[in-house]
Amino acid sequence: MQYSSQYLENLIRELSHLPGIGSKTAQRLAFHILRVPAEEAIALARAIEEVRTQVGTCSECGNIAEGDRCNYCADPKRDPSLLCVVEQPSDAIVLERTARYRGLYHVLRGALSPSEGIGPEQLGLEALRERVRQGCFREIIIATNPTAPGEATAYAIRELLRNLPVAVSRIARGVPVGSDLELSDAVTLTRALEGRKEM
Amino acid sequence: MQYSSQYLENLIRELSHLPGIGSKTAQRLAFHILRVPAEEAIALARAIEEVRTQVGTCSECGNIAEGDRCNYCADPKRDPSLLCVVEQPSDAIVLERTARYRGLYHVLRGALSPSEGIGPEQLGLEALRERVRQGCFREIIIATNPTAPGEATAYAIRELLRNLPVAVSRIARGVPVGSDLELSDAVTLTRALEGRKEM
Repeated sequence: MQYSSQYLENLIRELSHLPGIGSKTAQRLAFHILRVPAEEAIALARAIEEVRTQVGTCSECGNIAEGDRCNYCADPKRDPSLLCVVEQPSDAIVLERTARYRGLYHVLRGALSPSEGIGPEQLGLEALRERVRQGCFREIIIATNPTAPGEATAYAIRELLRNLPVAVSRIARGVPVGSDLELSDAVTLTRALEGRKEM
Repeated sequence: MQYSSQYLENLIRELSHLPGIGSKTAQRLAFHILRVPAEEAIALARAIEEVRTQVGTCSECGNIAEGDRCNYCADPKRDPSLLCVVEQPSDAIVLERTARYRGLYHVLRGALSPSEGIGPEQLGLEALRERVRQGCFREIIIATNPTAPGEATAYAIRELLRNLPVAVSRIARGVPVGSDLELSDAVTLTRALEGRKEM
C-alpha cells in the first residue's frame, strides 16, 4: 500500500477520475479533505450525493431539473417563440449570463460523434423535431460548440428542420472579444472574414 | 438562482472550497459529476466520507492511521534508531518513494507560524522531545519544508533537542536534480554553494 491507508488510496483514485485532476492533484485534494474540519468534508460528500439523487432531467428540454420541468421551461416570463439548442446544461448557463437571451432551451446532452457511437438517436434529434413541429417557435438558434462534432450537429439539425415553417440560425463564429488577432487560428479568422458586417 | 438547481449550486460551492479549484473548475467538475454513471458519483461521495470516518491519527507519530498506530510505527522491519521529522503525512509519502529511508517518522501536521497562531504547543514539540528522550534514536533527520516556517521549525527542534544524546541533521538544500541553474533563485544557489562537497 503506497499511502498507508486503503481509504486514502481509494479517495485518491476516485478523485483522479475527475476531469483535469491528475494523480498529484488528487493526492493534494485528498490530504486537504483529511485536514479540514470533518463537517466540511462531509458537506462535500453530501453535496455530491444529493446532486445525483435530487437532480434529474427536464422532460421537455433535457436540461437539468429538480422536478419534472426545469426552471427555464417552468418560467412563464420567458419568450416561448425562441428556442436555443445547446449541447450541455452548462452551455445554457453561460448563455444566461449574457442576459441577452430570454427564450427557451433544448439541451442535447452531447454532439454527433460516430466514433463514440453518438448518432441522431442518442441525441434525441427526432424528439427535437417533434418539439419544434408542435410548438409555436419563430426561430431556432443553434448554439452547439464551434467544434467538428458541434458543427456536424448544427448541420444535422438544420437539415432536420428544413421543411418546418421556422427560421433556423447559428451563433456567429469569429475572433473572440478582447483577444489578439495574432493568436487567432486560420479557421477562426476565415469564419471572422466570412461573417464580416458593414460598419 | 444562477444554476437552476440549488443542489448543483451547493455542489459547486463545496467544490470551490478545495485548494486550486476556482469557480469555473468547480462548475466543470460539478457538471461532470452530474453526467457520469450514478455509481461513480456515489463512490466518490463514499470515499470522502470514509476517509474522514475511518482514518485517524497515529498516537505515536502523528501520521495518518487506520487504527491506533500507523503502518510505519507498526512495521517491525523499520529501523527504530532513525527518526525523520516532517510537516505533513504527504511528506512521509514522498520520502517513502525514494526507497532510501527505512526509519520512523514524526509528523508535526504543520510548521511554526506565529501569524497563524501556530506555536511550539500546536505542533506538539514537547511531545517530540519526550519521544526522542525516551526512545533509542541515534539520529533525528529534520525534513521540514525549505520555506521560512519550515526553517524556523527546524531551528526550534534543533534547539529543543540540544541537550539530548542524539545527532540532529537537516536534509540538504541545493539545486534540484534535472533543473536549470539559470532558473534557480539566489537563496537556493547560496545554499547549494554552502553545501558543496568535494568530488
